[in-house]
Amino acid sequence: MIVFMQTVSLGMILEARERLKKVVRSTDLVPSQMLAIPGQREVFLKTECLQYTGSFKLRGAYNRIAMLTPEERQRGVIASSAGNHAQGVALAAQKFGIKATIVMPAGAPLAKVAATRGYGAEVVLHGAVYDDAYAEACRLQEESGAVFIHPFNDPYVIAGQGSIGLEIMDANSDITTVVVPIGGGGMASGIAAAVKELHPEVKVIGVQAAGAPSMLESRRAGHIVTLDSASTMADGIAVKTPGDLTFAMCEKYLDDIVTVDEDEIAGAILMLLEKCKIVAEGAGAASVAAVLYDKFDTSGKVACVVSGGNVDVTTLQHILDQGLMKAGRMARIHTVIQDRPGHLARLLSLISESGANVISIQHDRTSIMSGVGRALVDLQIETNDFDHLERLHAILKENGYAVM
Amino acid sequence: MIVFMQTVSLGMILEARERLKKVVRSTDLVPSQMLAIPGQREVFLKTECLQYTGSFKLRGAYNRIAMLTPEERQRGVIASSAGNHAQGVALAAQKFGIKATIVMPAGAPLAKVAATRGYGAEVVLHGAVYDDAYAEACRLQEESGAVFIHPFNDPYVIAGQGSIGLEIMDANSDITTVVVPIGGGGMASGIAAAVKELHPEVKVIGVQAAGAPSMLESRRAGHIVTLDSASTMADGIAVKTPGDLTFAMCEKYLDDIVTVDEDEIAGAILMLLEKCKIVAEGAGAASVAAVLYDKFDTSGKVACVVSGGNVDVTTLQHILDQGLMKAGRMARIHTVIQDRPGHLARLLSLISESGANVISIQHDRTSIMSGVGRALVDLQIETNDFDHLERLHAILKENGYAVM
Repeated sequence: MIVFMQTVSLGMILEARERLKKVVRSTDLVPSQMLAIPGQREVFLKTECLQYTGSFKLRGAYNRIAMLTPEERQRGVIASSAGNHAQGVALAAQKFGIKATIVMPAGAPLAKVAATRGYGAEVVLHGAVYDDAYAEACRLQEESGAVFIHPFNDPYVIAGQGSIGLEIMDANSDITTVVVPIGGGGMASGIAAAVKELHPEVKVIGVQAAGAPSMLESRRAGHIVTLDSASTMADGIAVKTPGDLTFAMCEKYLDDIVTVDEDEIAGAILMLLEKCKIVAEGAGAASVAAVLYDKFDTSGKVACVVSGGNVDVTTLQHILDQGLMKAGRMARIHTVIQDRPGHLARLLSLISESGANVISIQHDRTSIMSGVGRALVDLQIETNDFDHLERLHAILKENGYAVM
Repeated sequence: MIVFMQTVSLGMILEARERLKKVVRSTDLVPSQMLAIPGQREVFLKTECLQYTGSFKLRGAYNRIAMLTPEERQRGVIASSAGNHAQGVALAAQKFGIKATIVMPAGAPLAKVAATRGYGAEVVLHGAVYDDAYAEACRLQEESGAVFIHPFNDPYVIAGQGSIGLEIMDANSDITTVVVPIGGGGMASGIAAAVKELHPEVKVIGVQAAGAPSMLESRRAGHIVTLDSASTMADGIAVKTPGDLTFAMCEKYLDDIVTVDEDEIAGAILMLLEKCKIVAEGAGAASVAAVLYDKFDTSGKVACVVSGGNVDVTTLQHILDQGLMKAGRMARIHTVIQDRPGHLARLLSLISESGANVISIQHDRTSIMSGVGRALVDLQIETNDFDHLERLHAILKENGYAVM
């Protein structure tokens, strides 16, 4: 399949916005007091996690499919994706009443497979990773003649995503900086083109996961670079190779590209959940992480694109656990008690009197670490903060417990 | 302190909306595809969890404080609250530049205490429960002469909350039913008055926690009833006695009052988090629970007020855990293995080959249940769903393990 190198004009993005008006939500631009620094910066969240399908991908997919000829629509569309693009293409195809085939890796989360099927798409599960699914999609495409919908390197897909940039500036024309996550670069290209063509003075900053910095490496090299691996919890932006069109547009329009590491992404997910009351996936939180951890000059009125919220609940659990541990609000205590009646009860009384809450207990008398006649106790507890945890440690030590 | 019985007119609510325009967000009315039933019902979420302070309480508090005389402003305001009202009053007072004293129970979550202090209020921690804090606030009020801001039984507070009803109907004039949580009844009274005075044909349904049904019991009795206890995770609506003004307005305007139990509230919180990408506290999720579990005729275009999102992360963890267990996505497996080298490794291999993921392990050779030469193993695992869990059980049984 050949994609002709083509530029994306402001007119194409304006057209896309008109086309999308009845199909996508013009999502809310929510101010975040938590991220604001009085007198220095205001921060606004473009909540594409509250978009239909839980991410922005519907925009590009719908705009692309809208451009198909009647003959192409007859043939249907095909795409490969482990996540958001799958749902975006499926729902867009459903709206046009055309057949969609989505190839997903066999390990894709069941919730995403079910959602994609729910939009009427035929889901083919193939291979262990995205690359396998992509290869199978190419094979099926040749067989069926369906139109392949690329997730990012397509001018109409880019123009569709660009509608986000128009909406941000329409909602608040005082915005001075727009921050966008970059995977393949489709959304970043579209948003940057929209913002810069209309408001050249507004800065547009791209954010990549430190474990998958393909656009940044390409920018540094001056040509497209393919990474050996793309490893990040932000699966939505784990892309090894940018497109030629998206690379050219990011080169032209982006003021800078910065990276955020896994701890920073997790920290942003937790902050968004706890303080802003929204659920963001890793890719969606990356733009916020770049502000939260001051990866560029964040003064002014900053709009962060929270691109999606399709994060697995189990993943969310892990992130919350880590976050609570780091905040001193959940902790493990290892200690040794006399292996005689009443000694475990005494330990638990001390803990409950301090106001801490026991989540789980392990009591092991056979541990070589404790010695004969004693038992090792491993407790998972909830505390208010590090001060509380330290007070508890002190109380236990005063009462003769060795705390590890 | 005497509150004069007074009705709340549509005009007072319209005035409140004008007064609040620069202070509160007209929060988004977000359609939920997950809650929709094609051809039968559409559901929209009024996202007051995305309001400043994380709940709707700022509306009523600001509108009340705006009505104070210059002399009253000099004296400052005082309130008692364990949660959202504290932050609402604190921020509203800050906006008028007047002194606020908030009495909170000593056990209030540190995050809420810190947030309230962050809005410049003086926080007094007193007593173990809300009633103690309320008594102390009354004592301090007599001492200082500050104006007491009631959380619900006040016409200007009610009028402020009523602005939510106007915003819902402005955002979508086709709404046929509005669903509101009820604690003391301030928000329900305001919203119901706004909606019914302008659109008498629209139904307004109140929702209470089954563990704190004070307004429902009062309606049944035909007079105000005080509950012996109010026990629910939805602490924002755990109120033992409705106000006289709110009772009268709920009697006049509400079509029905229904209740939701703790499991239903938890189910709604999980659904909102996973599918709608928003964080709701128990009270905020109650309205959605009433739709999710069909507590009334939910056909038509239904707007649910998600009143707030100030839920503790630790509480959220518990809810997610319970939800994952119920969905077959997290499970415990108890089994017995030979206490000889290699046997635990073999068990773990079988589990990992099935695609399940081990979260934690306990291995206990001293259990009386296992018998000499054997060890009890207790595993916490992640699975995709109940089918997956059953397949794993079957594999383990085929391989000679007794699974409990």
